[in-house]
Amino acid sequence: MSLKPIDYADASPQVREVFDDIKRTRNVPDVNNFWKYLAHDPAGLKRTWGSLKEVMAPGALDPLTKEMIYLAVSVTNGCGYCIASHTAGARKAGMSEAMFGELMAVVGMANETNRLVQGYRVPIDAAFG
Amino acid sequence: MSLKPIDYADASPQVREVFDDIKRTRNVPDVNNFWKYLAHDPAGLKRTWGSLKEVMAPGALDPLTKEMIYLAVSVTNGCGYCIASHTAGARKAGMSEAMFGELMAVVGMANETNRLVQGYRVPIDAAFG
Amino acid sequence: MSLKPIDYADASPQVREVFDDIKRTRNVPDVNNFWKYLAHDPAGLKRTWGSLKEVMAPGALDPLTKEMIYLAVSVTNGCGYCIASHTAGARKAGMSEAMFGELMAVVGMANETNRLVQGYRVPIDAAFG
Amino acid sequence: MSLKPIDYADASPQVREVFDDIKRTRNVPDVNNFWKYLAHDPAGLKRTWGSLKEVMAPGALDPLTKEMIYLAVSVTNGCGYCIASHTAGARKAGMSEAMFGELMAVVGMANETNRLVQGYRVPIDAAFG
Amino acid sequence: MSLKPIDYADASPQVREVFDDIKRTRNVPDVNNFWKYLAHDPAGLKRTWGSLKEVMAPGALDPLTKEMIYLAVSVTNGCGYCIASHTAGARKAGMSEAMFGELMAVVGMANETNRLVQGYRVPIDAAFG
Amino acid sequence: MSLKPIDYADASPQVREVFDDIKRTRNVPDVNNFWKYLAHDPAGLKRTWGSLKEVMAPGALDPLTKEMIYLAVSVTNGCGYCIASHTAGARKAGMSEAMFGELMAVVGMANETNRLVQGYRVPIDAAFG
Repeated sequence: MSLKPIDYADASPQVREVFDDIKRTRNVPDVNNFWKYLAHDPAGLKRTWGSLKEVMAPGALDPLTKEMIYLAVSVTNGCGYCIASHTAGARKAGMSEAMFGELMAVVGMANETNRLVQGYRVPIDAAFG
Repeated sequence: MSLKPIDYADASPQVREVFDDIKRTRNVPDVNNFWKYLAHDPAGLKRTWGSLKEVMAPGALDPLTKEMIYLAVSVTNGCGYCIASHTAGARKAGMSEAMFGELMAVVGMANETNRLVQGYRVPIDAAFG
Repeated sequence: MSLKPIDYADASPQVREVFDDIKRTRNVPDVNNFWKYLAHDPAGLKRTWGSLKEVMAPGALDPLTKEMIYLAVSVTNGCGYCIASHTAGARKAGMSEAMFGELMAVVGMANETNRLVQGYRVPIDAAFG
Repeated sequence: MSLKPIDYADASPQVREVFDDIKRTRNVPDVNNFWKYLAHDPAGLKRTWGSLKEVMAPGALDPLTKEMIYLAVSVTNGCGYCIASHTAGARKAGMSEAMFGELMAVVGMANETNRLVQGYRVPIDAAFG
Repeated sequence: MSLKPIDYADASPQVREVFDDIKRTRNVPDVNNFWKYLAHDPAGLKRTWGSLKEVMAPGALDPLTKEMIYLAVSVTNGCGYCIASHTAGARKAGMSEAMFGELMAVVGMANETNRLVQGYRVPIDAAFG
Repeated sequence: MSLKPIDYADASPQVREVFDDIKRTRNVPDVNNFWKYLAHDPAGLKRTWGSLKEVMAPGALDPLTKEMIYLAVSVTNGCGYCIASHTAGARKAGMSEAMFGELMAVVGMANETNRLVQGYRVPIDAAFG
């Protein structure tokens, strides 16, 4: 049988601590399903959230760009849940419908030319080192 | 035997027309290997370049963001040539080393959590519609 | 229209022979949907079951390890059916919830670092031959 | 260290028997590297060759079509060796340069639209059942 | 929230022009969902349909072969919508159940041996250049 | 141009601290190339090593099983460097040639049946929940 999500009310103190940090950081009333399932592995939950929080924080790249990159990878991997959640995340961070359309167009072209390059067995140009 | 690249000097007028447009658009002295191999299919060369030119033009997303998205897809697909050429393209468009590092970190995390989501069989939250 | 599963009652003698061997080998009352669909290609059914039976038999690796490896591949490929069936198979072979959590963590890290390695274009160390 | 290929001269009788059948079936003087490496697992060599021989034999699909499908998959998976060997195989079976160009174009478009479909989260039409 | 499909009745003249060409070219009463979603990006709709129409037209390869190659890629990428739509497309172009079974068998073998080749790190034979 | 590896002699104190911990934990005289490239992103280096060290530590699964799972994922993703390094890692942890052969056979079968399942659009059995 499939695992069940672990809701806040049923979570251990260790899990609640991570849930609280996610809610505080993202300013949301509840965590999304991914975290409620990952809570079956409390150490993994803590580690994954810690890494994600660090990686997605504003830095040399802004949060919107990071969300769009996350979405580009999720589309390329065909992960339905990830596409839904990161489309929502990117919109929340400011992605307009026009930006979404261009993002998909770039992802589509990249997937096409990646395979053309491999099919034609193109050697790397000296200039690309 | 593997195909050989078609250089400008040996190209048909139809292929040269595309090569000329690539060089003009990108302001480069020669086209990179991808185009020299794709030139074995002149119709495909023309169509692919036409699409790429349209998709990568500045719009709702700027060229640097587009190049970084292209690179994120190429890394996820493990296409060596594409990683080399789009790393060069993104740098030319302004990607700093710090931006590259953060881009890779996001791509890495996305690939990790995409698979965690699928392994835990997480259902889509109602809020993500 | 999508194919329909072929149940034992409607199966040809050739298909029934394979179904009987699956039920006997796995000690189950009925075969799962995969085999009922593959039965549309009787030669493919026979060949695939023959290979799977041989590959998954105890050998230098025990059945639990084999089921977990199968699950790791299925998660990496994002195959929903395969994840469900091999999670069930691994549990039946003895995978505890703690083992599942660690398995997912390893699969997640491997998917992350696989892409980091490719993005950074890391050359193979001489020591790895 | 990487494994070494097992040449005919150094092969066990069981491996030689498979090598002989490959050479006879394909009418070639020696087997290609894939088989010489797989020979490290004699049971796997025998099983894989047996399956491949059966799957690639002429049937409802002709050998050229089968080789081109094999190549389409290999390109989509980015397997360099497989692309090289099945391009050679398809050419031997009659693939012209024009056919190769169209094959690559279809593979490229399929990879592009596969991702667009997933990015736009397109639901399956009732007509496709 | 997920995007909604854009039906003909609600489409802009630019989108209707593409829809009309799809219906005429394929001789169908309505376009399938993919186009109704892609219509959110009118330029992308026009470009993608233009490329697809050109790529899938009869040429050195016949339409059935092209549809089967499209399906082989879609299966390898695990795109559910694409598998459903191109299975329908291939059947309409003449794929029998026996051809479908052999197609799947080739796709399965290719996915298996692609990974064996990579796992054994097989170097490319000189003959494959 | 491609990045250059950062050797211990040229590394910052922050990077050296991570390198030292890797060498101590694995009891090796130097770190492998992956870490020398990732050192271009000191925060990413520290985070990735911290996660990997935690994930690969003995727990409910032993180190050999974890290395073989890592290898199974790397083969499925076609990451050459990762295949080389984790084959070495698995051997060091006790993987025999027979175990490697069976591991590859399972990875191959899983990649084959994953795609067959998707191509036949097999619905999940009620029993698998």
